[in-house]
Amino acid sequence: MKKTILGLVLAAATATATAVAGMAHAAETHVTIGVSVPAADHGWTAGVVYHAERVAKLLMAEHPGLKIIVKTSPNATSQANVLEDLTTEGINALVILPTDPDPLVNAIKAVKAQHIFVTLVDRAPSDNDQSVRDLYVAGNNRALGSVAGEYVKTHTPDAKVVVIRGLPIPIDQVRQDGFNAAITGSNVKVLGREYGNWSRDDAFNVMQDFLSKFPKIDVVWCQDDDMAVGVQQAIKQAKRTDIKYIIGGAGSSEMIKKVMGGDKMIPVDVLYPPAMIGTAMILTVANFYDQVPVRGSYTMDATLVTKQNATGYYFPDSPY
Amino acid sequence: MKKTILGLVLAAATATATAVAGMAHAAETHVTIGVSVPAADHGWTAGVVYHAERVAKLLMAEHPGLKIIVKTSPNATSQANVLEDLTTEGINALVILPTDPDPLVNAIKAVKAQHIFVTLVDRAPSDNDQSVRDLYVAGNNRALGSVAGEYVKTHTPDAKVVVIRGLPIPIDQVRQDGFNAAITGSNVKVLGREYGNWSRDDAFNVMQDFLSKFPKIDVVWCQDDDMAVGVQQAIKQAKRTDIKYIIGGAGSSEMIKKVMGGDKMIPVDVLYPPAMIGTAMILTVANFYDQVPVRGSYTMDATLVTKQNATGYYFPDSPY
Repeated sequence: MKKTILGLVLAAATATATAVAGMAHAAETHVTIGVSVPAADHGWTAGVVYHAERVAKLLMAEHPGLKIIVKTSPNATSQANVLEDLTTEGINALVILPTDPDPLVNAIKAVKAQHIFVTLVDRAPSDNDQSVRDLYVAGNNRALGSVAGEYVKTHTPDAKVVVIRGLPIPIDQVRQDGFNAAITGSNVKVLGREYGNWSRDDAFNVMQDFLSKFPKIDVVWCQDDDMAVGVQQAIKQAKRTDIKYIIGGAGSSEMIKKVMGGDKMIPVDVLYPPAMIGTAMILTVANFYDQVPVRGSYTMDATLVTKQNATGYYFPDSPY
Repeated sequence: MKKTILGLVLAAATATATAVAGMAHAAETHVTIGVSVPAADHGWTAGVVYHAERVAKLLMAEHPGLKIIVKTSPNATSQANVLEDLTTEGINALVILPTDPDPLVNAIKAVKAQHIFVTLVDRAPSDNDQSVRDLYVAGNNRALGSVAGEYVKTHTPDAKVVVIRGLPIPIDQVRQDGFNAAITGSNVKVLGREYGNWSRDDAFNVMQDFLSKFPKIDVVWCQDDDMAVGVQQAIKQAKRTDIKYIIGGAGSSEMIKKVMGGDKMIPVDVLYPPAMIGTAMILTVANFYDQVPVRGSYTMDATLVTKQNATGYYFPDSPY
């Protein structure tokens, strides 16, 4: 008898909770979302995997009936296979951050042809074909450069700057254009620019080269937090004290922690957040549970992270 | 005794539900969000109020500790007062769809100066000052025109079209530019363009005028569902049978229902959804509960609503 009362009460409580938590609609809606991201083979993508898994848990707890499957892939071929598998398993939506968008265009189009909602994150095909996606969520590469340039111009108006670029691809050029536009007409002078390939080790080598070439450097702009680590090591090893500060970019926990702590060498960071995968997932889920329009194009700000606002961007458990 | 068991069980069930539904973090986070929107004084804004209230309920049910206050204002002066009241009451975020953005710039900046997160919806200041907002969510006015133009060009390549414009303000011009670009180089011919002021009655009058001036009209593009109602009345009254179809815009329930039902006069609609207020609210809430980046600029697609996809855009209970 006791058991029956308990059972009844629990059933009633659960029914009420479910009805309230998701309104009748959501409680009955079963949705499966596939999230396909690159393997955690370097800093930023490790952050992407971390946030995809973190937000998947949050969303599944908020929505009974929601299933999110996160899959990682080391390259485009393996990611194309994942898309095929997910489609066969049966998904209502795909959230994809492509390892490399161009070779994956056909695989993504094949998913979309099955009337599966497609959210594309960060990397669009180079012909900018909008038909591959329902929703596009991306960072702002031009602003990543211009926000850094504005900071340098404002805080060190006569700075001599060395620039460590990424790889010679369009994303890097757009960032350089943003930086150049911001410092145009100012007294900020760029001493040299070299490619560091978004690699910690390469940035270390490039910085060593810069240090031996230029006796006086005020600022290093390396547009990436992983490269900023290599830059710091090179400066430390050379025991140089002329460099006032380094600006990286993205928002790694290591750099955000330094900003929070008031590290003079890392006074700010510029956001290009791997957590955007989570934003993309939240909107994709809203498409099914909240009946709001989400199809569109969403560009994240390259927010300047300072000591004042850093807490909101700090993930102590993230690998990046 | 029975009561005590009931009480205990309910408490346990509630505690579990809370922990699961919001993770420990969300359950303890108290957040108040003010939503300030125009009064429901015509179709589209009535839709905005409806969706703001609908999504507020959904979000409060999903997040224990979340309070959303929706306030409507008939004009900029009253809306500025609402912003002051909300700030005094104490809010963590403001979601605002301004009645008129320019006279409200200072009032919005005063809110932001209190470190309150500001989400701006649909209407930006004419100088496009990005510093008034953390997040901007808007429709795509150019695409509202170009999607309609593409449809006309594809489905009625030799159409003679009459165009009913809105008010002589930039939004209207951008829509016209989109339409013109889409039909450039085609055989589609625009017979005439007149302002209908986004009003049902004015559109009725303009359409009467067109009907008496032009003996043969194939298509009416009036870029707004309210005006489409006036256009239909004029056509019906004149007993004209030459008009093949009308393209409105926005996504009112009345027009979406016609699209769903296969009404030949309203084969499609182009989305400029009042429900975008709900999208803006979901992202604002995510900023506090899910630790994902949401600062940025989000442009909703002007999705072509057809018989196939109309269900997802239909709100039978909405006043618009």
